[in-house]
Amino acid sequence: MDWRNEIIAAADRIAGHVRRTPVLSLDLSGVPDPIEVKLEQIQHTGTFKARGAFNSLLSCDVPAGGVVAASGGNHGAAVAFAAARLKIPAHIFVPEMAGASKIALIRRAGADLTVVPGAYADALQAALEHEARTGAMQIHAYDGIATVAGQGTCLAEWENQGLEADTVLVAVGGGGLIGGAMAWLQGRRKVVAVEPQTACALHAALVAGAPVDVDVSGIAANALGARRIGAICFGLAKEQGVTSVLVEDAAIAEAQRLLWNEARQLVEPAGAAALAALTSGVYRPEPGERVAVLICGANPAPGPFD
Amino acid sequence: MDWRNEIIAAADRIAGHVRRTPVLSLDLSGVPDPIEVKLEQIQHTGTFKARGAFNSLLSCDVPAGGVVAASGGNHGAAVAFAAARLKIPAHIFVPEMAGASKIALIRRAGADLTVVPGAYADALQAALEHEARTGAMQIHAYDGIATVAGQGTCLAEWENQGLEADTVLVAVGGGGLIGGAMAWLQGRRKVVAVEPQTACALHAALVAGAPVDVDVSGIAANALGARRIGAICFGLAKEQGVTSVLVEDAAIAEAQRLLWNEARQLVEPAGAAALAALTSGVYRPEPGERVAVLICGANPAPGPFD
Repeated sequence: MDWRNEIIAAADRIAGHVRRTPVLSLDLSGVPDPIEVKLEQIQHTGTFKARGAFNSLLSCDVPAGGVVAASGGNHGAAVAFAAARLKIPAHIFVPEMAGASKIALIRRAGADLTVVPGAYADALQAALEHEARTGAMQIHAYDGIATVAGQGTCLAEWENQGLEADTVLVAVGGGGLIGGAMAWLQGRRKVVAVEPQTACALHAALVAGAPVDVDVSGIAANALGARRIGAICFGLAKEQGVTSVLVEDAAIAEAQRLLWNEARQLVEPAGAAALAALTSGVYRPEPGERVAVLICGANPAPGPFD
Repeated sequence: MDWRNEIIAAADRIAGHVRRTPVLSLDLSGVPDPIEVKLEQIQHTGTFKARGAFNSLLSCDVPAGGVVAASGGNHGAAVAFAAARLKIPAHIFVPEMAGASKIALIRRAGADLTVVPGAYADALQAALEHEARTGAMQIHAYDGIATVAGQGTCLAEWENQGLEADTVLVAVGGGGLIGGAMAWLQGRRKVVAVEPQTACALHAALVAGAPVDVDVSGIAANALGARRIGAICFGLAKEQGVTSVLVEDAAIAEAQRLLWNEARQLVEPAGAAALAALTSGVYRPEPGERVAVLICGANPAPGPFD
């Protein structure tokens, strides 16, 4: 796979549809040196997911039945938004655990919506049945080439904005975002995969030597709670020898509070997970190692205006 | 007054103490063209005020009695923060109307704090008495040269970051921020002064031909509720013929909600006031006029973790 060209093509395709999100240097209590941060949660619908959604819709002929997606909430909102902008019919399946805020976000974007009892895997099952029944195109939340290439534009953009870090910390759910990051960086910078202890599909796969099912729970589960890591991500992680660390829910909550208290960025737990690896000391940079943290999502439940 | 050199000197002085806040292009519902935005609320203590506070403390010899400031909350938090970083004793006087969030913010920064019954003017009176009694140095919230020059670094920085707009919308309380903006820009770009209808000290002064006392109330009053516009700001506004517009509280609340819903930036009412001029149609750009909005504060009450 020529990921570099896939991602450059994706960036061309989605330019004008997604936001070039801002970057800054941030000094935070308890973090010895300033870190580079990209505020990707300012992206449309509050997460990086809009990148993969637009790239998926723009890189193929969408059938008359439109598109279908299963989602813990964020991917569904992104697909609904992108489909509405491109005037494509969309049907989103979300698990109940997505929560009222994310469900409202999808409704606002104007897609058809089915709330499925259970977790992400149940919503995915319902979406697959919808695809078989209607011929709608399935947009996978993380394990599709167009999705991963779309998310990869985030790191490409960051390098274009002058990223200096030796190491980039990225939160991992199903592996779309970090897959895109690894696909773009190709080992030129160190990538640290950060997962909650209670939702660690990548970590479990690296231990087992292959993707395996994991139980998911905890405060970031509605965004990072993929039951099994994507094959694309796993392949890149194994090939590149990604560094995998796990963070406790309490550390995630503390990082979330720190981002608000000291930088006035209100994010969801998943959006603070990568920072939590640093603030909790689970990832300790070497002396002189320059570190960057990707802030990736800000759809907390409840939201401030819910 | 050689404002250009004052502001360049201020920028040198405060570099390393304040954050270079990020800028981006933002497309928002109801706003015809993308606008340039600077997220100055990511500044230390959640507003631009840290710029003036550091410049004030670093541009003179602080007496042994330390510093004293009166504040609706944001200036006090900034002075407390800057003083703590520079190891200078500080005493902050705030009116009760500052609210629990802002009072907690000042306490966290580690300054002595007195909460005064009433509004900003009452806190200022108490601060003046403290100054007379102790010999502490008074740092005015908006009407001091070092304060205005410090706030002016915000626009200088924005131009350095590639600001393209013909017109910059800035919220006005006592006039420190917009005073700094006008002092830096010197008419090179149009400056639009945005005030709440119920806290419009600049507008009233422009109508009267001189600073006059106004009654202040409404949702942004604890940040924009100066009873009288600063003399420095008024002088610059008259000299440059600033455009003055007023926004309703409902429009401010709507702009605040829009910034969260579509860009995941949670700001206080004052931080959304400049945008409200655009979204409410109170300020209508000419065809082709490029507009920038300064987002200046994010200390809402209650805050999301209060």
